[in-house]
Amino acid sequence: MGITHIEHIGIAVKNLEVSIRLYESLLGTDCCKIEDVPDQKVRTAFFQVGPTKIELLESDDPEGPVSKFIERKGEGVHHIAVAVENLADTLKEIEVKGFEIIDKKPRRGAEGSNIVFLHPKSTCGVLLELCECSASKK
Amino acid sequence: MGITHIEHIGIAVKNLEVSIRLYESLLGTDCCKIEDVPDQKVRTAFFQVGPTKIELLESDDPEGPVSKFIERKGEGVHHIAVAVENLADTLKEIEVKGFEIIDKKPRRGAEGSNIVFLHPKSTCGVLLELCECSASKK
Repeated sequence: MGITHIEHIGIAVKNLEVSIRLYESLLGTDCCKIEDVPDQKVRTAFFQVGPTKIELLESDDPEGPVSKFIERKGEGVHHIAVAVENLADTLKEIEVKGFEIIDKKPRRGAEGSNIVFLHPKSTCGVLLELCECSASKK
Repeated sequence: MGITHIEHIGIAVKNLEVSIRLYESLLGTDCCKIEDVPDQKVRTAFFQVGPTKIELLESDDPEGPVSKFIERKGEGVHHIAVAVENLADTLKEIEVKGFEIIDKKPRRGAEGSNIVFLHPKSTCGVLLELCECSASKK
């Protein structure tokens, strides 16, 4: 499968600026990057914790998936992303094993990564992202 | 603060055996440990993903916190644990910063670790565990 580590943990928040200050205090480290991800209708802020990032997500569209998530469940963990070495190969394996893939083909995530989401129905309620980072494509 | 990495991600599941098989297939790796944690009224199963563990949690008590979580929200991510070098020092810092701590004093988690939970109200809806692993006490 070529999963190397947990790439990031996505946390849905209502107000990015407020949450950045809170997580800077909590983690004792500065936010290392803020980025718009138009494809997912969010603004994101990253914190590095070892090899994993905490990714805060604020929706920029009331109809976007993160707005809908907060409406249903409130703020909290939205998704878990695992880093894979080769997304195309991993997808083939995952499909053969019967996991339900949300995206028909990979799309563009934060930091230039190629990503695919698996449906929580097939992963014990966890929205799981497979993430091929731009660094791992070199 | 001395946070070194994401120690584990706790996922609440209804049936541990079924979920172990599913995550073995998903992650392409064997479950590395099964452990009862009486203090939290759960049976747990671990998968190593880089330096982080995926911890599946099945309640062994219908009144336990993981049973209550599943009743309210269904299966899914229950908590995130960050590894800290010194839990006593971290707790002092966290309290001074105004974060709400659930446990008055550290308790025993899986794998002989000392743990404390922060209240989701003070961490954007995330049940956050501070975890001093037995290895890091050496």
